[in-house]
Amino acid sequence: MEPINPHLRATFAPPVMQARRWLTGVTFPANRPLINVSQAAPVEPPPKGLRAAIADAALNETAAHLYGPVLGNPELRDAIAMEFSRSYGGAVRTGQVAITQGCNQAFCAAINSLARTGDEVILPVPWYFNHKMWLDMQGISVRPLSCEPDMLPDPAAAERLIGPKSRAIVLVTPNNPSGAEYPATLVGKFYELAKRHGLALILDETYRDFDSRSGAPHDLLTRPGWDETVIQLYSFSKAYRLTGHRVGAVITSAERLNEIEKFLDTVAISTSQLGQIGALWGMRNLGDWLAQERIEILDRRNATKQAILGLHGWKLKSAGAYFAWVEHPYAESSADLAPRMVAELGVLALPGTMFMPEADPLGARHFRLAFANIGGAGIAELAARLENFTP
Amino acid sequence: MEPINPHLRATFAPPVMQARRWLTGVTFPANRPLINVSQAAPVEPPPKGLRAAIADAALNETAAHLYGPVLGNPELRDAIAMEFSRSYGGAVRTGQVAITQGCNQAFCAAINSLARTGDEVILPVPWYFNHKMWLDMQGISVRPLSCEPDMLPDPAAAERLIGPKSRAIVLVTPNNPSGAEYPATLVGKFYELAKRHGLALILDETYRDFDSRSGAPHDLLTRPGWDETVIQLYSFSKAYRLTGHRVGAVITSAERLNEIEKFLDTVAISTSQLGQIGALWGMRNLGDWLAQERIEILDRRNATKQAILGLHGWKLKSAGAYFAWVEHPYAESSADLAPRMVAELGVLALPGTMFMPEADPLGARHFRLAFANIGGAGIAELAARLENFTP
Repeated sequence: MEPINPHLRATFAPPVMQARRWLTGVTFPANRPLINVSQAAPVEPPPKGLRAAIADAALNETAAHLYGPVLGNPELRDAIAMEFSRSYGGAVRTGQVAITQGCNQAFCAAINSLARTGDEVILPVPWYFNHKMWLDMQGISVRPLSCEPDMLPDPAAAERLIGPKSRAIVLVTPNNPSGAEYPATLVGKFYELAKRHGLALILDETYRDFDSRSGAPHDLLTRPGWDETVIQLYSFSKAYRLTGHRVGAVITSAERLNEIEKFLDTVAISTSQLGQIGALWGMRNLGDWLAQERIEILDRRNATKQAILGLHGWKLKSAGAYFAWVEHPYAESSADLAPRMVAELGVLALPGTMFMPEADPLGARHFRLAFANIGGAGIAELAARLENFTP
Repeated sequence: MEPINPHLRATFAPPVMQARRWLTGVTFPANRPLINVSQAAPVEPPPKGLRAAIADAALNETAAHLYGPVLGNPELRDAIAMEFSRSYGGAVRTGQVAITQGCNQAFCAAINSLARTGDEVILPVPWYFNHKMWLDMQGISVRPLSCEPDMLPDPAAAERLIGPKSRAIVLVTPNNPSGAEYPATLVGKFYELAKRHGLALILDETYRDFDSRSGAPHDLLTRPGWDETVIQLYSFSKAYRLTGHRVGAVITSAERLNEIEKFLDTVAISTSQLGQIGALWGMRNLGDWLAQERIEILDRRNATKQAILGLHGWKLKSAGAYFAWVEHPYAESSADLAPRMVAELGVLALPGTMFMPEADPLGARHFRLAFANIGGAGIAELAARLENFTP
């Protein structure tokens, strides 16, 4: 097939789609159904009120079917500005917020406002694979920053990776895939590091609504001139179960958003109106519901932690958000074990190799377990199946 | 603001958003309301049945709120494969179709599957501005191909622009901004040219549903191995008034779609479920309605042609789809005239300079008139206002 962009060819296939293909041809007996801990996605629909709000708009609002402003609907941008001002103790203005077709796209837009082919970006390892894929296909080099042994990135190690082509440091907190919640002081150190070197700090907080800590997870938005350094990303997909609507946000300087507007106009034109309507309804009405959801996810996190700690030979490296990052006790690589676990255990989990450079031997030693969709009984059953695994 | 991607900074701001800003502070008297011929977008909502189908899915279908497959829902891909097989007399398979978050994104995905920074793409002039913007921000050089004097690109002239870095030729037919409908024989010649030089032929048929000709607009899909050369793009935005839902499609080889899947996974994850549900409902139920819509648009096209032909000093260069491409009789540049027309005439139209290289003097001489949203009376009123314009 010619012509082909070698940067695109060089990156890997979507891991979640790859993993889904392992299911092909495998049947799961009724007494041992599939336990799917592969994807960070709700499986239940949003609450009825939100669904009704979307349905009502679809039936009755002309604007719900027409193009909106490239940077998003003003009411939703307002609501995000208010929410981030409130919960981070800062002063975020509407003009510092843009809406995107999901948080992945917010990342793509942020990167393309910063860097081009030949530039470099520092990415903690294990990474979120779509971040790596975008950087690959844009011809931007990734400088991997190990988070071992405590799954926290080290600012001093990051500083050693900074060179003349560096453009940004990316932090995901609570982390995907490790679940680690980065302490506010650590995030502050990365902010200072980025600022000192004239880099951007991209802060992806897709899972902020499920952070186990109370209060603001960092104080960056209270610092004068924060928007010259910080590009904060957010997703509505997890909080309100809107994955199928594709709504995310990027928060940074109005000046950078002028550049991002060019990117979004070209890739998106505007974000789905019904998705934006749902997100706004959620922000206005689902505060208490979301607080309950968070408690449920935190319960599942604790259950998963306990279950893994009780497993012979397995090690829990970190847990939070929707994820546990675990080390397995087998000689084989997780890349080989993962499809076998589907067939032999009825468990679908992503191997650590999907979140690491190929050359990193730690990928083979780990799994990401996305526990958010399985309740206490499911977690116990998952542990029981892993306990009996003899590859 | 540092760091900044110089490729992104170098491209221009979204023209439609720029033009909207000309409206700021201008009031339009009740007896002379704004005539907006700036955007190629429906202003009415989709038919009630389609809205009800979306509302019903939002209320009752869990899957309508959750991630779908990266390349789109199988039923919609099937329906497009069938429709293109039927109306182009070819044999398009489901595996040759992918769904995107709008047709702009289909173009971005197609380009990134082909080319990277430093490569070249041939773009007929006047161009669709978002195509130029994407190529700019990706660091891909545009080789402009003039369509003067008949608004049709010349394959021989295109061949002279082909060099070792060329990756693709882009055709938009019916054209945006000129409205020109490219004859099937001309499209065939470009196919042969692209094939001979190992280039891709990107064929953007966003406006195919409003083509004035009967039968297939080209025969490329009947040619053996077409999918090695052709990347066909389509949009649901215009046909079913779904601009606010962002649904488009790309049709090419399954092998190239494997690469495009990486791009879409990273930029989109999946296309809005409700948008896909609406598009599928439209394909299944709105055939007759769309045929009527087409007749109405063709009527407006004829009325616009007649009106421009009757204007002293104005010249109609071409017309089709939603657009007329017209030459004005004034000494001033269309770039200066356009904001004055808002204030002095109550007419918002995009100047030719937005569709051309800055160095091309023809940009200053032309306007694009997007007549699709104004009926016969509106077109007559537009002509009357232009007739009385004395800049």
